[in-house]
Amino acid sequence: MTTGQHSGILNSSPAARQSREPLLSLRWKDGKLLMLDQRLLPEEIVFLELTTPEEVWDGIHAMKVRGAPAIGIAAAYGVVLGANACQGDSDNWLGHVTAVAEHLATSRPTAVNLFWALDRMKARAAQLAAEHADQAKRNEGLLAEAIAIHREDEEVCRKIGEHALPLFASGMGVLTHCNAGGLATAKYGTALAPFYLAQEQGIDLKIYADETRPVLQGARLTAFELQQAGIDVTLLCDNMAGLVMSKGWIDAVIVGTDRIAANGDVANKIGTYSLAVLAKAHNIPFYVASPLSTIDLETESGQLIPIEERPEHEVTEGFGKRTAPSGIKVFNPSFDVTPHHLITAIITEKGVVKPPFKDNLASLFKKAD
Amino acid sequence: MTTGQHSGILNSSPAARQSREPLLSLRWKDGKLLMLDQRLLPEEIVFLELTTPEEVWDGIHAMKVRGAPAIGIAAAYGVVLGANACQGDSDNWLGHVTAVAEHLATSRPTAVNLFWALDRMKARAAQLAAEHADQAKRNEGLLAEAIAIHREDEEVCRKIGEHALPLFASGMGVLTHCNAGGLATAKYGTALAPFYLAQEQGIDLKIYADETRPVLQGARLTAFELQQAGIDVTLLCDNMAGLVMSKGWIDAVIVGTDRIAANGDVANKIGTYSLAVLAKAHNIPFYVASPLSTIDLETESGQLIPIEERPEHEVTEGFGKRTAPSGIKVFNPSFDVTPHHLITAIITEKGVVKPPFKDNLASLFKKAD
Repeated sequence: MTTGQHSGILNSSPAARQSREPLLSLRWKDGKLLMLDQRLLPEEIVFLELTTPEEVWDGIHAMKVRGAPAIGIAAAYGVVLGANACQGDSDNWLGHVTAVAEHLATSRPTAVNLFWALDRMKARAAQLAAEHADQAKRNEGLLAEAIAIHREDEEVCRKIGEHALPLFASGMGVLTHCNAGGLATAKYGTALAPFYLAQEQGIDLKIYADETRPVLQGARLTAFELQQAGIDVTLLCDNMAGLVMSKGWIDAVIVGTDRIAANGDVANKIGTYSLAVLAKAHNIPFYVASPLSTIDLETESGQLIPIEERPEHEVTEGFGKRTAPSGIKVFNPSFDVTPHHLITAIITEKGVVKPPFKDNLASLFKKAD
Repeated sequence: MTTGQHSGILNSSPAARQSREPLLSLRWKDGKLLMLDQRLLPEEIVFLELTTPEEVWDGIHAMKVRGAPAIGIAAAYGVVLGANACQGDSDNWLGHVTAVAEHLATSRPTAVNLFWALDRMKARAAQLAAEHADQAKRNEGLLAEAIAIHREDEEVCRKIGEHALPLFASGMGVLTHCNAGGLATAKYGTALAPFYLAQEQGIDLKIYADETRPVLQGARLTAFELQQAGIDVTLLCDNMAGLVMSKGWIDAVIVGTDRIAANGDVANKIGTYSLAVLAKAHNIPFYVASPLSTIDLETESGQLIPIEERPEHEVTEGFGKRTAPSGIKVFNPSFDVTPHHLITAIITEKGVVKPPFKDNLASLFKKAD
């Protein structure tokens, strides 16, 4: 197995794109997964043509695709690619597919959607193995499941946007962090969904996007996708958030999440916790947009969520040249946990959840069942 | 007049430096000002040989030299270079020197030391014009004044370190922002002075340095100068400060300042205000290290301090490659103001000042007079 390779590349420059069609991070086409290489944005729009689960593993691990929902969708298609490559003895099919799913689960540690999507694919594989002796039929069934995960995510994001929209009014300033946008999901995004829906309805919001060091998802992705959509967006460095809040420019903060614990603690991109403390100090509501699939009732509190640490070079030479001395010690956690008491509401596809989160999240799941 | 040029360059690589002698940001040598080009650190150590006030203006404006005390020292030598170039009619000398000083005062708007040093040079020039008819004597007197400003800053920084040192104990974690170090001053720095003195006395501190976007003075300068000195330093992105505080790793925050108002409000590098709010939320003391020359009793409160906004490209393509979409709106304030109620103490060369700052700063100046 090799990593870091892909079967093909489809390339275009941002200027060459004529349409205002949203740029989708993932598409399934002719038995291949087309993955937008988000590391190259905003300068280049490159779709990788992935044909093996290992390429998908590498795409997730290297953050060519990122965003908790998009990672889950990519992994689901990765299982399909693995199943399609399974030749021979149909007795081995389920074991093979399960092994592929378990390997894909090792690509990143924090986002619960990854495990959620893979568990769903494994469960469906077990059903299909029981229902059909024919491998082609089983593989068709798995593909249908991955496509369902993909389509459902788009619907979920739109619903999150609909539930969030009443929290915003024309003229409001809204700060967001990292990219919980269309690029992080099937379409619309989670935290950015209300911005797209506001635009459809003629509600003018003034969006502020934290650049989000070290990987700059705010500068490279959020600023890019909102600008492409014609939404008013201003880029900030992360350390300017306190200042713009103190100036009275920010009426609400909204972010996405990689995992929410049963008590409402939220794991999200590093810097989210600092923002939440700042929002509290300025009496600004702090919202978290999250599909149910990101809420992990099995994890009691945020202290139990594993926090990925990423390579030092993201901090020391992230901009194309070295910006810190050689040999310097670096702390580079990819996420932090925002305790539930700093969160005003969690916005899901089933509605807006307010404190007490432990009870209200549990009730939401009972209703959803 | 041309900007952006300099008469000569002295270059060496960090690896080529054999000694542990501190790297000085400014040196006067053979009638020229040697200015370390801090924009090239940590990769290259380049000393510019400046021979005209316009080169000094450009050096300050373009942040080749930065740090409030260092800017003041550089400007003082800039006045000397202007005086040395004054030929002919000695009746014009004072007018010429005054015009040079007033032009140098336009190089950056926020740091009060710049105006303080230039006012001192203008006042000395007026005395010298009255005392001596001979231009050479006047010029010698001006050079002596610039050298005095330079030497006094070194003494002041050492004193700040001595007064700050009792606030720290072995094993403590201390967070700092931007670079208020030796590179920002004649030597030792303001906020970093206690770290150097702690090292001399065998007190082990664990320093955390915010990288300090957009210009990365923390990564490029603070991490560099502490590492060169053999002090334990860990580099962070700015948005990680909340997380390391919540982990209990930070026992104190100490920063420098560009201007302190009469009521104790502190203008300092963008991000300082956010840090102060975070420190308060975590019950961590927040210290500001400042020479008296940075305290501006003429400015009643921080709201009256002009805040410089700097070019967008610092945010969108600061480090050799574009990291945000073309045409994106950017907010890039260089400073923010931390209100006095978030500050635990201001540490000066005359001692540690605690709240109420308005009264206690005024008393300090009366004592200093």
